[in-house]
Amino acid sequence: MQKEMAEFIHERIKIEEEYAKNLSKLSLSPLAAQEEGTLGEAWTQLKKSLHDEAEVHLKFSNKLHSEVEKPLLSFRGDNFKKDLKKYDHHIADLRKQLASRFASVEKARKALADRQKDLEVKTQQLEIKLSNKHEEDIKKARRKSTQAGDDLMRCVDLYNQTQCKWFEEMVTTSMELEKLEVERIEWIQQHLRQYTTLRHETDMFNQSMVEPVDQLLQNVDPAKDRELWVKENKTGDVRPVDMDL
Amino acid sequence: MQKEMAEFIHERIKIEEEYAKNLSKLSLSPLAAQEEGTLGEAWTQLKKSLHDEAEVHLKFSNKLHSEVEKPLLSFRGDNFKKDLKKYDHHIADLRKQLASRFASVEKARKALADRQKDLEVKTQQLEIKLSNKHEEDIKKARRKSTQAGDDLMRCVDLYNQTQCKWFEEMVTTSMELEKLEVERIEWIQQHLRQYTTLRHETDMFNQSMVEPVDQLLQNVDPAKDRELWVKENKTGDVRPVDMDL
Repeated sequence: MQKEMAEFIHERIKIEEEYAKNLSKLSLSPLAAQEEGTLGEAWTQLKKSLHDEAEVHLKFSNKLHSEVEKPLLSFRGDNFKKDLKKYDHHIADLRKQLASRFASVEKARKALADRQKDLEVKTQQLEIKLSNKHEEDIKKARRKSTQAGDDLMRCVDLYNQTQCKWFEEMVTTSMELEKLEVERIEWIQQHLRQYTTLRHETDMFNQSMVEPVDQLLQNVDPAKDRELWVKENKTGDVRPVDMDL
Repeated sequence: MQKEMAEFIHERIKIEEEYAKNLSKLSLSPLAAQEEGTLGEAWTQLKKSLHDEAEVHLKFSNKLHSEVEKPLLSFRGDNFKKDLKKYDHHIADLRKQLASRFASVEKARKALADRQKDLEVKTQQLEIKLSNKHEEDIKKARRKSTQAGDDLMRCVDLYNQTQCKWFEEMVTTSMELEKLEVERIEWIQQHLRQYTTLRHETDMFNQSMVEPVDQLLQNVDPAKDRELWVKENKTGDVRPVDMDL
């Protein structure tokens, strides 16, 4: 997700650069350059302020690049993906092992049931006709049944061990993954906050770029500029005087 | 000059419109739209804030058009130029008249000098040889000299009248022109100040557009978002329990 955010910021950077380029170009315009006096000074400053604004936006875009786009982009490289896959495989292996142990338990449980059934059948046969051969059979069946019982217990034990291990690993991994997700959110939060900080900064700097223009516009003195005009248009020259004989 | 300033402002308007268009377009980008939880909310707001910024810049450009460009452009239409020309012609006519009256004075002054010279020559001739014819000549020359003197006085009088009228008109016109120049400077000053006011406003509005993003970024809660993640990834599900026989 942070990669896409970085892409978004990159687009924003391009917009800022374009805007700055246009402002800077316009600031060099010769329009109304002939305006003189205090008004001329204010006008020159106004044009210059566009260049200053352009610089502010360029600085914004540079900082967006180094302080937002790049960190978002570089967050968790390819190694991180490999690590995640390792976690995944590890848990999958454990799950597979658990499933196979469960199957073993089921199989052992069935084997025990079979043995017990066999023992039961043979015991009933013994009641009908007693013989040495039958007694041997029953002993054998009882032994096999006991062995099947032991088998089942061993399988259950193995299953429980695996289950316990799987659970522990699962908890550890889940906690690790959850921690990583929290880290990711905090990282993004931090850098998006950097974005808003830079935006605020830009507005502040922009404000201060207009201040010199404001100052000079306040200083515009029509009376003073009128004098310039009078000089140029010679409306204040010494008048011709009356002629004497 | 104010026409060129209006042209400059027009260029600025175009830059703002382009910037707003680009910001608005980017705000609709689907990038990282899948981000969820409080971080997702903040991200959505951040994208939306670009649209709000675009609106601010669009408003700026609209106001630049109606409150700066148009007034500068409409200041003193064609009638004003006609009036200025009338002033010019009027003063030029008076100046021409004054020059011709001055030439008349010079001519009359020369005529008087000629007559006086003539009278002097004739008076000297009378001293050498007296005759009736000579006395007649002197009388005639004296009369002509007196007449030339009267002519000169009349010419000087006419010149002085014209000079006086020219001066009065010149002063009136100059004062009128100077007043108009002051008006022009004040008009431009007023509308350039409107420009800086709008720029300030834009920065202010821009600031406030980032505030909701700031708010939501402050509210980003990794623990809460982790829960979402846990639900999706089922890392918090009930674990398998130990098996009994």
